[in-house]
Amino acid sequence: MAEWQRTHTCEQLREEHVGQTITLNGWVLTVRDNGHQIFIDLRDRYGLTQVVFNKADNAELFTQAKELKSEWVVSVTGLVRKRLEGAARADISTGEIEVEAKTLRVLNQCPPLPFEISEFGSELANEDLRLQYRYLDLRRRSLQKVLILRHRLCKVIRDYMDAHNFLEVETPLLGKSTPEGARDYLVPSRVFNGEFFALPQSPQLYKQLLMISGYDRYFQIARCLRDEDLRADRQPEFTQLDVEMSFVEREDVTGIMERLAVDIFDKCLGVKLSVPFPRLSYAEAMSKYGCDKPDLRFGLEIADITDIAGASEAQFFKDAVAAGGVIRAINAKGAAAAQDAKKAPLFSNTALKPGGELAKVTETYRAKGLAWLKVEGGKFTGSIEKFFSDELKAKLTERLGAVDGDLLLIVAGPESVVCDALGALRLHLAARLKLYRNWWEEKAEHDESEKKKADAAKKKKENYAPVPFQPRAEHFNFAWVLDFPMFGWDDEEKKWAAMHHPFTAPMDEDLPHFWQNESLGKVRAKAYDMVLNGYEVGGGSIRIHRQDVQSRVFEILGMNPEEAKARFGFLLDALQSGAPPHGGIALGLDRWAMIIAGTTNIRDVIAFPKNQRARDLMTGAPAQVDDRQLKELGVKLS
Amino acid sequence: MAEWQRTHTCEQLREEHVGQTITLNGWVLTVRDNGHQIFIDLRDRYGLTQVVFNKADNAELFTQAKELKSEWVVSVTGLVRKRLEGAARADISTGEIEVEAKTLRVLNQCPPLPFEISEFGSELANEDLRLQYRYLDLRRRSLQKVLILRHRLCKVIRDYMDAHNFLEVETPLLGKSTPEGARDYLVPSRVFNGEFFALPQSPQLYKQLLMISGYDRYFQIARCLRDEDLRADRQPEFTQLDVEMSFVEREDVTGIMERLAVDIFDKCLGVKLSVPFPRLSYAEAMSKYGCDKPDLRFGLEIADITDIAGASEAQFFKDAVAAGGVIRAINAKGAAAAQDAKKAPLFSNTALKPGGELAKVTETYRAKGLAWLKVEGGKFTGSIEKFFSDELKAKLTERLGAVDGDLLLIVAGPESVVCDALGALRLHLAARLKLYRNWWEEKAEHDESEKKKADAAKKKKENYAPVPFQPRAEHFNFAWVLDFPMFGWDDEEKKWAAMHHPFTAPMDEDLPHFWQNESLGKVRAKAYDMVLNGYEVGGGSIRIHRQDVQSRVFEILGMNPEEAKARFGFLLDALQSGAPPHGGIALGLDRWAMIIAGTTNIRDVIAFPKNQRARDLMTGAPAQVDDRQLKELGVKLS
Repeated sequence: MAEWQRTHTCEQLREEHVGQTITLNGWVLTVRDNGHQIFIDLRDRYGLTQVVFNKADNAELFTQAKELKSEWVVSVTGLVRKRLEGAARADISTGEIEVEAKTLRVLNQCPPLPFEISEFGSELANEDLRLQYRYLDLRRRSLQKVLILRHRLCKVIRDYMDAHNFLEVETPLLGKSTPEGARDYLVPSRVFNGEFFALPQSPQLYKQLLMISGYDRYFQIARCLRDEDLRADRQPEFTQLDVEMSFVEREDVTGIMERLAVDIFDKCLGVKLSVPFPRLSYAEAMSKYGCDKPDLRFGLEIADITDIAGASEAQFFKDAVAAGGVIRAINAKGAAAAQDAKKAPLFSNTALKPGGELAKVTETYRAKGLAWLKVEGGKFTGSIEKFFSDELKAKLTERLGAVDGDLLLIVAGPESVVCDALGALRLHLAARLKLYRNWWEEKAEHDESEKKKADAAKKKKENYAPVPFQPRAEHFNFAWVLDFPMFGWDDEEKKWAAMHHPFTAPMDEDLPHFWQNESLGKVRAKAYDMVLNGYEVGGGSIRIHRQDVQSRVFEILGMNPEEAKARFGFLLDALQSGAPPHGGIALGLDRWAMIIAGTTNIRDVIAFPKNQRARDLMTGAPAQVDDRQLKELGVKLS
Repeated sequence: MAEWQRTHTCEQLREEHVGQTITLNGWVLTVRDNGHQIFIDLRDRYGLTQVVFNKADNAELFTQAKELKSEWVVSVTGLVRKRLEGAARADISTGEIEVEAKTLRVLNQCPPLPFEISEFGSELANEDLRLQYRYLDLRRRSLQKVLILRHRLCKVIRDYMDAHNFLEVETPLLGKSTPEGARDYLVPSRVFNGEFFALPQSPQLYKQLLMISGYDRYFQIARCLRDEDLRADRQPEFTQLDVEMSFVEREDVTGIMERLAVDIFDKCLGVKLSVPFPRLSYAEAMSKYGCDKPDLRFGLEIADITDIAGASEAQFFKDAVAAGGVIRAINAKGAAAAQDAKKAPLFSNTALKPGGELAKVTETYRAKGLAWLKVEGGKFTGSIEKFFSDELKAKLTERLGAVDGDLLLIVAGPESVVCDALGALRLHLAARLKLYRNWWEEKAEHDESEKKKADAAKKKKENYAPVPFQPRAEHFNFAWVLDFPMFGWDDEEKKWAAMHHPFTAPMDEDLPHFWQNESLGKVRAKAYDMVLNGYEVGGGSIRIHRQDVQSRVFEILGMNPEEAKARFGFLLDALQSGAPPHGGIALGLDRWAMIIAGTTNIRDVIAFPKNQRARDLMTGAPAQVDDRQLKELGVKLS
């Protein structure tokens, strides 16, 4: 070991080390110089240790220490000693001791940085600048914690999958382009000019082939790539936990995966989830929550009132019913009476008028209008009140469980429009009525309050160790959504498209519809989504294991047999080579890391992310390349 | 659970299950029909179980079973019963029982396959055909065992790294092209027409940046890609265990990695390795073994005899010395007296003549001639014997430890030629003299002999459980090779090239040479290779952590400051932002899997490999793509 090398990390020293001569390596976090003593907080991945330079003891060393600046890398050899009475810190694990420096070695200097490395959101530099100097931003303790948690998440997953007999098998990055859905990244080939590999959008076909090969239980934490227009929470490359099992039905897959979720939440967050997760059908999710990934942390369920409102005198309700539409409502419990911080009504009538806060939400989804009723003193008020007879009012009261202070919000129109509009309105209401808390928001408040306590204690020369925040099971509402439609009609392309993917099996009881062209819209698929707090956190299906069924799907999707053979011939052959029943799922690992880390920025959970325009601001990729390289690949720019 | 779903795998049933009604799912391996009974061996990933259909008990079921063919997928419900006396099989774990079928469900049929799935090398179909139907070839038990072992290898590595505080961090696949060494795979970008990403040849710079960010200990089982001409043991995409550590020197890295090797060999193969592994310098490896990845399972060390042979009367030795060359020798112990199976000399004089077996080996490496001496009855014989005085003969005898039966093989010339020639000759001699055994060769012999014992027992109606082969530590000779030259002169390009990579630190004691242009050939690098049985199984270095040193390397490699900035500006900036001393290593995971699985074919350890021309014969990738796709990417074929 070299003289400068550490004997301990910056997190290891305790009272028991007092009197020992040790060496620490790390970064200078802060320097405080009171003229007689210089205190530095030395930081590494593991923690912080205070180092003291005493002018009286060693003037030369003191002068040397005067040079130190933030982010310099140093080696300090010194004596561990107990801090003076009152100087101990309860908020760091090494707070009982400090190191009296005897030797200082500067391992690397650091000129002033392009931005200060701060932990506080409000003080963060512009994100583009931080992405350009990602290696500096990654020094933030909060980002380090996220990446450490992501490592832990993957380790917990692998331990669990291994313990359940799953084999991790690596599948190729260089595959074949099978244009379908999202766009493939293409890779020209030097050996075969004019031909291209494609980077995988998922290992879907490979994992199915592994089942056909008899591997029984497969998983992979797999990198996938899509050359798509980005959204705030997308990256061109992403990671998924990819799983496939043989000789299974739906409940085998969902069961294994929900018990994995229990393990993850327990080991990564200390949260005890209960299983089984609630299951609801796609039809139920759409009618009750207006979407297929319902946020179940709150009620605000949607109720169908087509029969009641359709029987009212309101012409727009009658028209909607006549056009084959539906009328549905949300009872925003207490929203009529709710007040904001200034004691003004939370939702004034203005919010309910066209273009107002609530009406705007439904208008975004092409709903023609937002009707409403308030319940006050046992009576309905509102412009549509007059269209309802007492009998209909009574029915409405019963159907919606309406009581004083409630606000009933009603949308009429085609079912898909009503679902979208009320689904969005439901989320909006829940946020405004504060019906749920994201755990990281609660944590931020908690941490703020603990910091105040610590500050107050400090003023009184007392020592306060902040209590860490502990998320609870109520922060995480998982569910399974089942029985998705198999096909959706693509109005633009005038053809059927697969709702999940073309390898998903139809439900046995819907096979009669499947083999006819007339009722394809009625076919449900053996697909399932894992949903958490309004996000899809996993999606899978039982796959087709019969060649005739797979060929029929390709036919329904508009492929002729030659096309199907050219693109998926190897799969069709494999299905005729002894393919077992099988099914699987994929979980979006980046999303899981975000939830567990408590961040809403996907770039926080990826060490070297692209920005929202899919560019790596640090290396400058993508970039122009040498003509020689292109020539070898047999391509040129167009 | 569906009626057809298994209650047990094909490996689980034992005597304790006798009397239970169970369901198995699997593939029909074999069908034997004696007219009264049909026996099938049912196979899954876990094992084999014998299923019996009795005509007398259930004629309809018997008729149904008559249809079964190899590789059909079935579900069998039946009664577990003990096999008849003498019918038990000791070679499979379910050999005590069989299942009396009560219900048979065919889950999928399988027409005759393009080739038979055989376990025996001699019966294997042509490799291209097997790669085309990879999903069938993957059903071979031996390939399944390899992929299961590869999974175990990765799990052991991850457990070890996690226990030692290493964080697995995913680094990008879409990066920047920094042409250097091997060719990058390029990826055109739809969003930024005319610009390209590059797929990583290794995560080298990212892992260094993680150290600069303070992550302290990083690892990743990372996919890497090189668009290179393939060799038999190369694939365009490969996997490496990538490791980086901060505040370390060489022995920290080598120590962590050799203890990982101990763990891997213990848990994957049951072999107890000893550490530390021997360490030898590059100079020592080259002079003693003629190469930088010596096979240490045998001696046959090379000795320098320039002083002795150069003093002889042989003009060709004198000429070599005058030209600045060296004269070195191998004493092939006992090789002069060695005989082949037919009792003929193993190496006749013909083998030693130009173009003969041994001379040809050295000629391949541009050695001008192979001189030799045999030791018989205490005397040297051979054509060059006459050039040596008695005194020189005595010196030679002492230097080479020559005794009766030895064959001394001598090459003179430039040092690099002599090293290459004698290094190759050493390996050739060791193979011919059978100085080592590959463990899988020993296993093959062992298994063959066990099979004979089992067959013999069977004839005597006895039952013999073959003893599994256990590899031993002596099969695996690890070593570290250290102190590599930092630069090598590229005679074609007329410039210096980095021997390891341009981020490797020079040795401290060689810094004076490093800063001068005159003596760059004398600079040694802080690089180290892990070597096993003549293969490089890992390579790493302590990295440069100072910007001035890194800039100097780029300068030596012929980059002007603008070029260096354009290509590696982010690294140079990062080195000036508080970079700690750091170093790391990468292990070729495919090679490790090959060694542990005991195969010499890299395609055996990859689930879906490319063939030797870098094509995926199963999917046909690479392939032509739609014009529309190319247009979107802004490229066209040239």
